Amino acid sequence: MPLYGGVEGGGTKFVCAVGSGPGQMIDELRFPTTTPDETLGKVVSFFRKYMSAPQRLEGLGVATFGPIDPVVGSSTYGRILATPKAGWANCDIVGILAKELRLPIAFDTDVNGAALSEAKWGAGQNCGSVLYITIGTGIGGGFYTQGGVLHGLLHPEMGHIMMPHDRQKDPFAGSCPFHGDCFEGLASGPAIEKRWGQKAETLPADHPAWDIETDHIANALVTYIVTLSPQKIILGGGVAQQSHILPIVRSKVQKLLNGYVQSGNVTTESIEDYIVLPGLGNQAGVLGALALAMFAS
Amino acid sequence: MPLYGGVEGGGTKFVCAVGSGPGQMIDELRFPTTTPDETLGKVVSFFRKYMSAPQRLEGLGVATFGPIDPVVGSSTYGRILATPKAGWANCDIVGILAKELRLPIAFDTDVNGAALSEAKWGAGQNCGSVLYITIGTGIGGGFYTQGGVLHGLLHPEMGHIMMPHDRQKDPFAGSCPFHGDCFEGLASGPAIEKRWGQKAETLPADHPAWDIETDHIANALVTYIVTLSPQKIILGGGVAQQSHILPIVRSKVQKLLNGYVQSGNVTTESIEDYIVLPGLGNQAGVLGALALAMFAS
Repeated sequence: MPLYGGVEGGGTKFVCAVGSGPGQMIDELRFPTTTPDETLGKVVSFFRKYMSAPQRLEGLGVATFGPIDPVVGSSTYGRILATPKAGWANCDIVGILAKELRLPIAFDTDVNGAALSEAKWGAGQNCGSVLYITIGTGIGGGFYTQGGVLHGLLHPEMGHIMMPHDRQKDPFAGSCPFHGDCFEGLASGPAIEKRWGQKAETLPADHPAWDIETDHIANALVTYIVTLSPQKIILGGGVAQQSHILPIVRSKVQKLLNGYVQSGNVTTESIEDYIVLPGLGNQAGVLGALALAMFAS
Repeated sequence: MPLYGGVEGGGTKFVCAVGSGPGQMIDELRFPTTTPDETLGKVVSFFRKYMSAPQRLEGLGVATFGPIDPVVGSSTYGRILATPKAGWANCDIVGILAKELRLPIAFDTDVNGAALSEAKWGAGQNCGSVLYITIGTGIGGGFYTQGGVLHGLLHPEMGHIMMPHDRQKDPFAGSCPFHGDCFEGLASGPAIEKRWGQKAETLPADHPAWDIETDHIANALVTYIVTLSPQKIILGGGVAQQSHILPIVRSKVQKLLNGYVQSGNVTTESIEDYIVLPGLGNQAGVLGALALAMFAS
C-alpha cells in the first residue's frame, strides 16, 4: 500500500505520522512547537527515514494553524503569514520541507485538513460537502466540496463572521482583538472564560453560560448553512465536546431556520445525523494532514 | 460553433435564447411568467426550432428563481420547491422540458448561473472563485469555485444569513417573513421601502437610508468573505446599481475586516477591483442559463 506522511502543525504541538489512513499508520512522533528551525528540523529528521524504497513516501501533507497562504502559484504560497506566534510569521514551511525532503507537499489549514479527512474517512463519508467547525481556543472552519477543500483569497476564517448580538441577554462585549463580538469573540473557549471567570470545562451543564453559548453557535451554524449549504456539519474542538449542548444547538438551528431550507436534513429529526461530532477522534489532526497528501489536487 | 440554449426563469418574466456566448447570440424571446403550462409551453415552442441539424442545440441551461432542487440524483431533482408563486410549487420544470425537447439539461438557481457566467465571461474572469450577490426584490447569492457552482443540501440561500443589528441606529424590525432581520429582511428593496415609505430608487444619495443600507451590506460581505474567501465579489440587482453606495461599501468592509484577512485584495486600494458591478449587463440572466449548459458538470 502506498505510504504518505502527515504533519499536523499546531500552536503548542506538532505531530508527524506515516501511513495510509485510519488504522493503517506505521509511525508517529509528537513534540512541542518551539522555534521554526528546531521544530521543522525535527520534522525533517522524522521523515528522512522514509525517503527511500521500500518505505518511500508518495507525498507529504502539512496542515497547520493559520493564517497561511495555501494558494499554489501565489508569491507567498507555503508560508505561515502574520501570526502572533513568536518566530513563525512569514515562515516558509513548505519551502523548507520541500528543499530538505524533495517530496510533493500539500499544504493547508488544520481545519481544511480535518474537513477532508472527515469527508473521506469520518463522519462526513458519502457526503458531497462537509463543513468542519472547531470551537476551542479559537474558532475556525474548513469546507470540503466538489472533491476538494475551499480556498480563495487565502482560506476561510470562519470564526470571524459577523453575529447577531443581543446585549440584553449577553452584555459581554466579545474577546476578538480584531472584531470584538464576531463568532470567535463571543463563543470561543477564551470568550467563555472571560465572560464567566472560569474555564468552559468547569461550568456545569445547567449553568446559564450554555444557553448563551448555544444561542451563538446556532446563529453561526444558520449563517453557514444558508451560505454553504453543507451536506454535513461536524463540530470539533474542546467546547463542542461538551456533548450536552449538541441537542440544544440542533433544536435552536431548526427554530432559527424556521422551515426556510427545504431539506429533510434540517427540517426533521434527521438533524441528529446532520450536526454531529467528528468521527476520527484524537487522530483527526494528523489524519487531516495525511488526507491532504492523499486527496488534495 | 456549437449552439446552446438558455432559459432564464424569473418570477415576472422568462427569457429564452440560443447562442454560444456573449456577442454570439442568434435568437431570443421574452415573455411574462404566467402559469407553468403556458410558460413552459412557450419555452418548448421556442426551442423546437433548434432540435435538428444544422442548428441542433448541444444542450439547454435553465436558471430559475428558487427554491429549487438542483442536486442530480435527488428524488425532487429538477423541480421548483415550495414557493409562494401561484402554481409553481413542485413544478417539475426539468422533467417537462426534457420530455418535450430531449436535450441534456443543466438546472440551477439564477444566481448560480450569474456567478458562472460572470466567472467565464464577465467581471470574474480569471478568478478561481467568484461570489455573485444580487440585492433587489430579494437577496440571493451564487458561488463559483473549483470550476463549478456550489450545491449541497440544495443550494445556498445567502440572503438569509444572521446579521448584527444595531437597533439604536436602525430600529426597523426587518421584513423577512421567515427570519425578520436577516440580510434580506434588513437590506432588500422591499425592506428599504418599508423602512422609509418610499422606493429605494427614489431616495437621494444623501438620504440617511444609504448609511444604514451600506452598514448592512458591508456586514454581510464580511461574513461572506471570511466564510467563502471569494477571489471576486460581484454585486448585482437593482439596489446595488445605486453606484454611489459602492465606494462606501468597500470602505466599510475594510474597516470591519480590520486587517484580519491578509490579502491585498481587501487590505489595499485594490478593493476597487475586488467588490465590483457585473460585467455582463442586462444579458447576465440568460447568459447565466447558457453558461450552465456550456460549463456545468
